[in-house]
Amino acid sequence: MSNIRIGIVGYGNLGKGVEKAVQQAPDMELVAVFSRRQLAETASGVPAVSTTKAGDYADKIDVMLLCGGSATDLAEQGPQFAALFNTVDSFDTHAKIPDYFAAMDDTAKASGKTALISIGWDPGLFSLQRLVAGAVLPNGTDYTFWGKGVSQGHSDAVRRIPGVKNAKQYTTPREAAIEAVRSGKHPALTGTEAHIRDCYVVAQEGADLAAIETAIKTMPNYFVGYETHVNFISEETFNREHAGIPHGGFVFRSGQTSEGVNHVIEFALTLDSNPEFTASVLTAYARAAHRLSQHGHKGAATIFDVPPAWLSPKTAAELRKELL
Amino acid sequence: MSNIRIGIVGYGNLGKGVEKAVQQAPDMELVAVFSRRQLAETASGVPAVSTTKAGDYADKIDVMLLCGGSATDLAEQGPQFAALFNTVDSFDTHAKIPDYFAAMDDTAKASGKTALISIGWDPGLFSLQRLVAGAVLPNGTDYTFWGKGVSQGHSDAVRRIPGVKNAKQYTTPREAAIEAVRSGKHPALTGTEAHIRDCYVVAQEGADLAAIETAIKTMPNYFVGYETHVNFISEETFNREHAGIPHGGFVFRSGQTSEGVNHVIEFALTLDSNPEFTASVLTAYARAAHRLSQHGHKGAATIFDVPPAWLSPKTAAELRKELL
Repeated sequence: MSNIRIGIVGYGNLGKGVEKAVQQAPDMELVAVFSRRQLAETASGVPAVSTTKAGDYADKIDVMLLCGGSATDLAEQGPQFAALFNTVDSFDTHAKIPDYFAAMDDTAKASGKTALISIGWDPGLFSLQRLVAGAVLPNGTDYTFWGKGVSQGHSDAVRRIPGVKNAKQYTTPREAAIEAVRSGKHPALTGTEAHIRDCYVVAQEGADLAAIETAIKTMPNYFVGYETHVNFISEETFNREHAGIPHGGFVFRSGQTSEGVNHVIEFALTLDSNPEFTASVLTAYARAAHRLSQHGHKGAATIFDVPPAWLSPKTAAELRKELL
Repeated sequence: MSNIRIGIVGYGNLGKGVEKAVQQAPDMELVAVFSRRQLAETASGVPAVSTTKAGDYADKIDVMLLCGGSATDLAEQGPQFAALFNTVDSFDTHAKIPDYFAAMDDTAKASGKTALISIGWDPGLFSLQRLVAGAVLPNGTDYTFWGKGVSQGHSDAVRRIPGVKNAKQYTTPREAAIEAVRSGKHPALTGTEAHIRDCYVVAQEGADLAAIETAIKTMPNYFVGYETHVNFISEETFNREHAGIPHGGFVFRSGQTSEGVNHVIEFALTLDSNPEFTASVLTAYARAAHRLSQHGHKGAATIFDVPPAWLSPKTAAELRKELL
């Protein structure tokens, strides 16, 4: 069987992660990286191509992985590429998913392609867990915790405070809350109660540290209501200890099958690199998008529509023998 | 839409669990319980019917849940019922799954039915996790831990020792082994090293306790090589504290996406009742078997073949809006 031919759109952290992930896939080959910017070269040596030339690759790429860095990128690029290619993307603005699905579904139905949307870990693997666990334990409660991990939006917000040279914000789930859920209790938890916010800040020379700390802790929407810790550190420490983009989280379903008989289903991720892991999920689902398309699927689909077997390069008989 | 009409074959712990689970499903109704034994009545009040009369129900049941208590039951009952009904079963003899699949596939193809085999949590949800996690992190290692939970086979073996009146054996994963895997280390672990065996024994009056303990700890295949604890307790304590059938376990995938960048995916179950939880998984997959059949699937299938959306009574649009 010939390899699945992959294209990447967008060459930020996520696109670079996909480039690495495709190299680990025995049944895939990377054809080109597409970017709106003029790229000098790619890490893997495949051609860097302007997105305006993507149409030339319509017969040379089986699945295009859309690695645009924001919902804005994807809202535009999604339909543009689904008109020409099978696509996989990580559209993650939860509230806008129904509209995005409709737009991608219309385009992909017209082009006869498969558009697999909102793939990653949340939305993505976490959504899959919520679906399966909720179906198995209909009488129960979902709990989702995020972290320990870097929140890009909160880090940006801290960096905009006067006197701040650099900053990173980690969201950390409260251990006691996780333990309460894990032990089968059904605590009533708000996101504010369940998470702590830790800020690591490099201040500009002579800056008013107390003022920075107050500005952080009183920032509405971002920090008010949360237990927030502000740690001032040197630039060297920052570069040495806070260069990575770790993330992760927990999805729990705690439910009863009869009076007093409780069960807890837990799914947890501990990720050294959020973009590299997300890229690996996208890459596995590129295989599924290819197979959906081969089986005649036309239109948009989500992680909920993919038979798990299609994620693996192994045959159905191998999977039954080795993994069931 | 009319309800999915469910039948249960076998009325032990698993069948009784399905009876409870169907009552929690908004889109299902239980039609009858089939048994080889003469049942006086059922907890839910549905008719108790002899398995020899099952053919009379061919048009009255959409999915038959096979709750035979052992691989021996299913090896015979599986093909017998797949000749007449869509079926879901929990066939769990790993080594024989390929043969069982082939037998069920032949029968179900001939009858035009769907036979969903080896559903439960291992095989079942654990298998699903191994497949998804392995596809996302191809460069990695799987770890499975079982427990804390009751091992029926080991409990039976202890009960056969002279002087033992009653006994229960719990398999418990070693906390240090779990922590090593969870923290991203890749320990080389055997099942013997990773688990502890705890026995709770009610001795007959005047029995030689030291002899019983030695008989347990030196029992080949069952206990030799394991750290084994033997606790002698009174019959009252046994009945009060060891009446349940709890179980659970952990599936980990620890893998790298690039040099030094590690990720850990964890799935854990903590179950008050092994049979009630397994029954709930079977019931959710009965919905999927019904939909597979409605979509024209003929033959055997496994958890790997089921689009997750088909586990839920919600529509695809509801799932995208509420769970993605």
